[in-house]
Amino acid sequence: MEFSLIDRIRQRAGQRPDVLLGIGDDAALIRPPAGQLLVVTSDTLNVGVHFPHDTKAADIGWKALAVNLSDLAAMGAEPAFCTLALSLPKADAAWLDGFLDGFLALARAHGVALAGGDTTRGPLSINVTAHGWVPAGQALRRDAARVGDEVWVTGTLGDAAAALAQLEAGGVADPALRQRLDRPVPRIEAGQALRGIARACIDVSDGLLQDLGHVCAASGVGAEIALDALPASTALLSRVNQPTRHGEQACGGDDYELCFTAAPAEDAAIHALGERLGLRLSRIGSIVEGAGVQALLADGRPWHPPRAGYAHFGA
Amino acid sequence: MEFSLIDRIRQRAGQRPDVLLGIGDDAALIRPPAGQLLVVTSDTLNVGVHFPHDTKAADIGWKALAVNLSDLAAMGAEPAFCTLALSLPKADAAWLDGFLDGFLALARAHGVALAGGDTTRGPLSINVTAHGWVPAGQALRRDAARVGDEVWVTGTLGDAAAALAQLEAGGVADPALRQRLDRPVPRIEAGQALRGIARACIDVSDGLLQDLGHVCAASGVGAEIALDALPASTALLSRVNQPTRHGEQACGGDDYELCFTAAPAEDAAIHALGERLGLRLSRIGSIVEGAGVQALLADGRPWHPPRAGYAHFGA
Repeated sequence: MEFSLIDRIRQRAGQRPDVLLGIGDDAALIRPPAGQLLVVTSDTLNVGVHFPHDTKAADIGWKALAVNLSDLAAMGAEPAFCTLALSLPKADAAWLDGFLDGFLALARAHGVALAGGDTTRGPLSINVTAHGWVPAGQALRRDAARVGDEVWVTGTLGDAAAALAQLEAGGVADPALRQRLDRPVPRIEAGQALRGIARACIDVSDGLLQDLGHVCAASGVGAEIALDALPASTALLSRVNQPTRHGEQACGGDDYELCFTAAPAEDAAIHALGERLGLRLSRIGSIVEGAGVQALLADGRPWHPPRAGYAHFGA
Repeated sequence: MEFSLIDRIRQRAGQRPDVLLGIGDDAALIRPPAGQLLVVTSDTLNVGVHFPHDTKAADIGWKALAVNLSDLAAMGAEPAFCTLALSLPKADAAWLDGFLDGFLALARAHGVALAGGDTTRGPLSINVTAHGWVPAGQALRRDAARVGDEVWVTGTLGDAAAALAQLEAGGVADPALRQRLDRPVPRIEAGQALRGIARACIDVSDGLLQDLGHVCAASGVGAEIALDALPASTALLSRVNQPTRHGEQACGGDDYELCFTAAPAEDAAIHALGERLGLRLSRIGSIVEGAGVQALLADGRPWHPPRAGYAHFGA
């Protein structure tokens, strides 16, 4: 099965000057640009766990790359190339073509070449290892938050979790919410623009509180978040009431927004950045002494999630 | 599930000076050495397809890395670091520890750091994306064979295929043969030593004739192979008669030896290399004008495989 599918992939894989040799040899050959560090991340999507069974092939392709590009964005990296390891129950050319439509649409939008691949027989599973470049010393890391930093988030939170909740309740998801679940937009431009402005950064994939908790643990600090400051889309506001909305925004997964910290002196630069990118940037809290993340209600009382935690679909 | 397992992996992941930031952030940060190209390969093993269901966790770990290091070897690269994407039906710490025993034993032997990872819930599947370095202009490629080159192979061929055949016949595999199936040895030192000596190179993972066929197709040449020249282990000679042995040596998969071409003027250098590495290097044929690979019997008649092709376990 492998070779006919690989040929199909190879014909559409795209090229870049730093990818000297792509699909078709034992390995790809890449020329690193001078002065840049290589940034590498690897994420897998499994059917029924990371996407619902009814997800379109093109959406699976898009999302498999998007979740990896989101990790590169969180490092402030410029995406460059990736490898794709695809396990398929059978050699289904029509499915593969759809998958590649979504995958390569996002790859092209960010100049990402598909430099290597592997197709195997097995339950549907997609691993992407994405590679990018970042100037030495400029990467955004999790361990750089400082007490007194403000905490920010890009875009809006909770849409994907709300779509999942609608699906799990046996219904049909609101199309605007489902779009956020199926076609997350990695914040590539924002990540790169935040170099020199943000201190710490992470992408919100497992829920804001959990992911910000990783920043706090790595940085040896705590954080306080104002629930009312969490940005919500019009679709979420119109479909979901509090406190369900608070839970989906604070603990839902699959947002793929960036959560970052910055000194208060950077407020003007951050506002200007949001204007330039046409991207909502919301200040949602601050970094404090201590450990862990505390979400606060409007009256200042601590808020506790309605259940232990949200997770990816079916997990 | 992900974080407890990732912590377990992280504690044992190893370090390298060029891996500035490993497991624990959104992505790993790597400093490319000056003058070197990055070499990247990605291969997946699925249970029941790439290894029998009864394979020990440590052997699966070893093999998942070995098949990737074999690809780096075939490029003449020095292995450096890898990412590991592990799908597991459940968070089984004992299985993971065994898996890491095998994986990291091979990683340590070649100075490979585990720089990133992802654990997900799903049917057992292991993807490794391995990275190495090769001096610019010195990579061994598939497309460099020339008419008049001799064709060589490292080690011996057919043991893994013979073990599979014994298992598929419902028996127990000979331990020496099963060892070659479960613990393939990537020819890392040989690959690097062949830079400047070999012209084209490939690793034998899908069967000699098929893999040499890729070299011929990429180089625009043909090849003739003498079946009697194919190197066989003592275990294979004692357990398997011709013509079964010929089939397993010429068409069996999972050998992970290197097949390379070189000018006849390199014979002395190749013999010296074999002596130095303590590795059998066998001249098995030559590159000719035309296309495709023809295997020849001792009397010069063309040989045809007993069936259309061998494949990985269960495929």
